[in-house]
Amino acid sequence: MKVVDLNCDMGESFGAYKLGNDQEILQYISSANIACGFHAGDPSTMRKTVKLALESRVAIGAHPGLPDLVGFGRRNMDISAQDTYDLVVYQIGALQAFVQAEGGVMQHVKPHGALYNMAAVRPALAEAIAEAVYRVNPELVLFGLAGSELTRAGEKIGLRTAHEVFADRTYQADGTLTPRTQPDALIAEEAKSLAQVVRMVTEGKVQSLQGVDVPIRADTICIHGDGAHALAFAQSIRQALNAAGVSIRSVRS
Amino acid sequence: MKVVDLNCDMGESFGAYKLGNDQEILQYISSANIACGFHAGDPSTMRKTVKLALESRVAIGAHPGLPDLVGFGRRNMDISAQDTYDLVVYQIGALQAFVQAEGGVMQHVKPHGALYNMAAVRPALAEAIAEAVYRVNPELVLFGLAGSELTRAGEKIGLRTAHEVFADRTYQADGTLTPRTQPDALIAEEAKSLAQVVRMVTEGKVQSLQGVDVPIRADTICIHGDGAHALAFAQSIRQALNAAGVSIRSVRS
Amino acid sequence: MKVVDLNCDMGESFGAYKLGNDQEILQYISSANIACGFHAGDPSTMRKTVKLALESRVAIGAHPGLPDLVGFGRRNMDISAQDTYDLVVYQIGALQAFVQAEGGVMQHVKPHGALYNMAAVRPALAEAIAEAVYRVNPELVLFGLAGSELTRAGEKIGLRTAHEVFADRTYQADGTLTPRTQPDALIAEEAKSLAQVVRMVTEGKVQSLQGVDVPIRADTICIHGDGAHALAFAQSIRQALNAAGVSIRSVRS
Amino acid sequence: MKVVDLNCDMGESFGAYKLGNDQEILQYISSANIACGFHAGDPSTMRKTVKLALESRVAIGAHPGLPDLVGFGRRNMDISAQDTYDLVVYQIGALQAFVQAEGGVMQHVKPHGALYNMAAVRPALAEAIAEAVYRVNPELVLFGLAGSELTRAGEKIGLRTAHEVFADRTYQADGTLTPRTQPDALIAEEAKSLAQVVRMVTEGKVQSLQGVDVPIRADTICIHGDGAHALAFAQSIRQALNAAGVSIRSVRS
Repeated sequence: MKVVDLNCDMGESFGAYKLGNDQEILQYISSANIACGFHAGDPSTMRKTVKLALESRVAIGAHPGLPDLVGFGRRNMDISAQDTYDLVVYQIGALQAFVQAEGGVMQHVKPHGALYNMAAVRPALAEAIAEAVYRVNPELVLFGLAGSELTRAGEKIGLRTAHEVFADRTYQADGTLTPRTQPDALIAEEAKSLAQVVRMVTEGKVQSLQGVDVPIRADTICIHGDGAHALAFAQSIRQALNAAGVSIRSVRS
Repeated sequence: MKVVDLNCDMGESFGAYKLGNDQEILQYISSANIACGFHAGDPSTMRKTVKLALESRVAIGAHPGLPDLVGFGRRNMDISAQDTYDLVVYQIGALQAFVQAEGGVMQHVKPHGALYNMAAVRPALAEAIAEAVYRVNPELVLFGLAGSELTRAGEKIGLRTAHEVFADRTYQADGTLTPRTQPDALIAEEAKSLAQVVRMVTEGKVQSLQGVDVPIRADTICIHGDGAHALAFAQSIRQALNAAGVSIRSVRS
Repeated sequence: MKVVDLNCDMGESFGAYKLGNDQEILQYISSANIACGFHAGDPSTMRKTVKLALESRVAIGAHPGLPDLVGFGRRNMDISAQDTYDLVVYQIGALQAFVQAEGGVMQHVKPHGALYNMAAVRPALAEAIAEAVYRVNPELVLFGLAGSELTRAGEKIGLRTAHEVFADRTYQADGTLTPRTQPDALIAEEAKSLAQVVRMVTEGKVQSLQGVDVPIRADTICIHGDGAHALAFAQSIRQALNAAGVSIRSVRS
Repeated sequence: MKVVDLNCDMGESFGAYKLGNDQEILQYISSANIACGFHAGDPSTMRKTVKLALESRVAIGAHPGLPDLVGFGRRNMDISAQDTYDLVVYQIGALQAFVQAEGGVMQHVKPHGALYNMAAVRPALAEAIAEAVYRVNPELVLFGLAGSELTRAGEKIGLRTAHEVFADRTYQADGTLTPRTQPDALIAEEAKSLAQVVRMVTEGKVQSLQGVDVPIRADTICIHGDGAHALAFAQSIRQALNAAGVSIRSVRS
C-alpha cells in the first residue's frame, strides 16, 4: 500500500496577531511544522499549537526560521554555517520543551522560508542544519526539498529524511522548483495540481515545464494553511490521494 | 562533612557585545546559570558557554529571564502566570538542546533578575515557574531565594530545590533581603561578607540588620562574575569555606 | 458651535500580520494615532498609514508604546522616567520622519496601552512624556485621559492638551474610568453609549456608576478600529453627535 | 587651505552592554555617526551620545543599519528597495528627534555595515537610501564610499554628498576597496596608513595594490573608535594631516 505524509506550517500567530486556521487544517494533515519564535510564533502560541496537534494526533515538527520577525523569515540573510547550526539547535530545543511538557514526542524538523530555500542549494548550510538536528536528537526526521542539498546532508549524517514535494508548484527538467519569480511557477488549476501530486506519489515522477518526465521522491506533501481555499484544497488532496489508493500517514507512524 | 554549591550567572554576552569573565570564574564555581536569549545571551553564546561549563565540569542550569533585552531582564513586567509558564518552558528547552547536543545533562533552573524577584514573593508566578520546570523535566533542581515563594512552590510540586543565599547582601529580621533601595543593602567589607557566608552554611543562621539571628537554609551561594573584584572575591569565598571545613559541590553531585 | 475630535488607533499591523480596518475607519475619524514600532507597527506600515491618513485629510499623531511587541504594549513595565522620556522621543521622531517625507505635519502624541494607563496616574512618567513631546516639538498636542496626570503634566509644561473620553466605558464618582476588571466597566448598549458621549461633549458631564453627575472635559473621543462593529459604531457616533449639533474636527483644525 | 572631515561610528552601546570610547574619540573627530537602534544603540544611548557630540561641537549624523541586532548589522540581507527606504526614514527620524530635543541640528546620514556595503554596489538600494534622506530633509549630507553607487545616487537626487575613504584599507586598481576576505585588505603599518590618507586628501590619489595610482575623492575619513589603539591612531592621523597643512572640519562647517 502506498502512503504519503501531508504537512502544513502552523503556530504562526504572534502575540495579538492571528494567522492561519490551525485547528481546521489539523483535520486534514499528518504532520505539523510549528514555528519556534524567530520568524513567527511565540511561547504561548507554541504551547497551544503543540496541544492542538497532540489532540488531533498529528505528528509534531519544529519549524525553525531566520531571526527576522518583520520579514517572516522570508528574506535571505548571509548567515554563517555556525550561526545556522546555533539557531536551529536553539529553536528545536524551545519547541521540544513544549512537546515534553505535554507528554508528546517530536517527529521532525523542517526549516522555514529563506532558511529552507538556502539549505536546499548551499551544502554548508544544509550540513549545519543536519548536524544541529542530529546532535539534538538523531531520531528526528529531517524534512527538505526532494533531491536537495538538505536531504542529502541529512542522509550523509545518518538522519532519516523526508523528501518534500509541492502540490501547487511547477518543476524544471532538472527536478528543481520553477522559481516564484517566473510567471508559470504556480499551478492555478486545481485538477492539474491534484493530478501532479497523485502521480508524484504513485509513480515517483513529475512532468517538468519543459515537457519531460523527471523522477522525484515524494515522502511528504506541503500544503498551505492560510488563504481562502486552504481547507477546501486540503480536503481535495486527501480525496484524490485516497481515490488513488494512497493513505495519509505521518512519516514515523 | 558540610557541602555547599557556588553558582554564578554567565553566558550573558550578546552578539558583538561581551560581558563577564566566564572562563575565569568557572574555575571557582560548581554551578553555572546560563542566559537563554530573552534578557541576555544568544544561540552562539549559549553553545560556547555550555561547552566551557562542560569542560570545566561545572553543573549547568538554565537562567530564564523576562523578554526585555534592553533592560537586561531587570525591570518588573506585569506578566500573567500563563505567560510566565510559557516563557520559562521555552527558555529551558532552548538551553537543554545545547546541553543535549554537547552530550551533557542539565542540572537546574534559576530565574533571572526581575523574574527571580517577582517569583520570590508572588505565589502565582512561583507556581507557574515550578510547573514549567517540572513538566519539562522533574529531575531538574529549582534554584530560588532561600525561604521564598519560589522554593516553596518547587517543593510543593515535587521538585528538588536549592535555597540560595547572597554573600554580599544584608538580611532583615524576617529573613528577607534588605531591598537594594536602602543604604545598607550591601555588605561593603569583604571580611564581614565572608564571615556571613560561612555562618549561613555552617550554622544555618544569619544576623539580620536589626541585630537578631535568623535561621536560613543555604544550599547554594550566588556570586557575581563581572566587576573588578569578582575573581578575587570568588577565590576568597572558596578559601573561607574550605577553611571552615565546607566543600564546594554542585547540588546534584 | 460645539466641536469634538474623534480619534482611533491605527497602523498596528506588523510584517506579515494584518490588524484593523484602517482604510475604512479613516472615513469616520478626525485624528489617527499611528503605532511607532515598539508595541505594534513597522517602518513599512508606518509609511503606508501616514499616506492613507494624509489622503483622507485626517490629522496624524504618534502613538508610542512600551517595548513589548509580543504583549502589544498592554503589560505594565517598571520603566524609569528617564527611559520613558527616551522611548517617547525615539518613537515620535520615527513617525515624524514619515510625516515629513510625505510633506505632512504631525498634530499630536497619544501614548498607547500600558504607557497611557501608567501615565494617567503616575506624575513622574506623565512629566517625562510631556517633556519628551515638548522638547521634540512644542506645537504638538498631547492626548491623555481626561483629568489625568498626563493632561496635567502637559498643561504644566506648556503643551496644548486634548482631554480624552471613552464612548463605551463607564465612569466612577471621582471621574476615573471603572477598571476593566470590574463587571460593569463597559457599556454594552449602543444607545446608552451614544447618549453618554453626546452628553459629555455638549454638557461636560457624565453620570457615574454611583449615580452622581461628574464634570468631564471631552476634547476628543476614542473609538476602536477593530472588532466586528467598529465601522458601524463609528458611523453611529458621528450621526449622534451631528444630530446634537456637534461637528467632528481634529484638535488643531 | 585643504580641509577634510574625520568621522567615527558611535553610540553603539545597547542596554547593559557598553561598546566604544565615545567620549575620548570625540576629541579627535569632526563628525559622529550615531547608531539608531536597529544594529546597535537604544533610545537612552542615543540621547546620551547626541548630548556628548553637541558638547564636543562634533557634527551629528544618523547611522542607520539593518534590523539585525545579534549580527550587529554586518550580515547582508535580501531586503527590497522599499523596505530599505522605510527603515532608513525610520532611523533618521528617531535620531533627529533626539537632536531636536537637545536643540541641535543633524548634519548627515551614513549607512552602517552591510547596508553601507550593499548600497555601494547596488543602484536600487543606493537610490532608496538617497530618496529616504532627501525626503526627510534635503539639507542632510549623504556619506558613502568614495565613487560608489551610494554617492552617485545622492548626487543624482540633489543631495550634498561626502565621499569617504579609509585610512587602514588597501585599494584596487578600479578604485574599490580590497575585500576583507583577501589577506592584504588591511594596512598593518601605521606610517603607511598615514601616508596614504595624507596623499588621498592632498593629491586626490591613492596607490592601488596593483601599483598604479587611482584618482579618489576624499571628503571624509572613517576612523574606528574601538580597539586598543583607536585613540592613539586618531591622534596620529590628526597630527599627520595638520603637518601636511590639512585642517579637520565637519563637512557642513
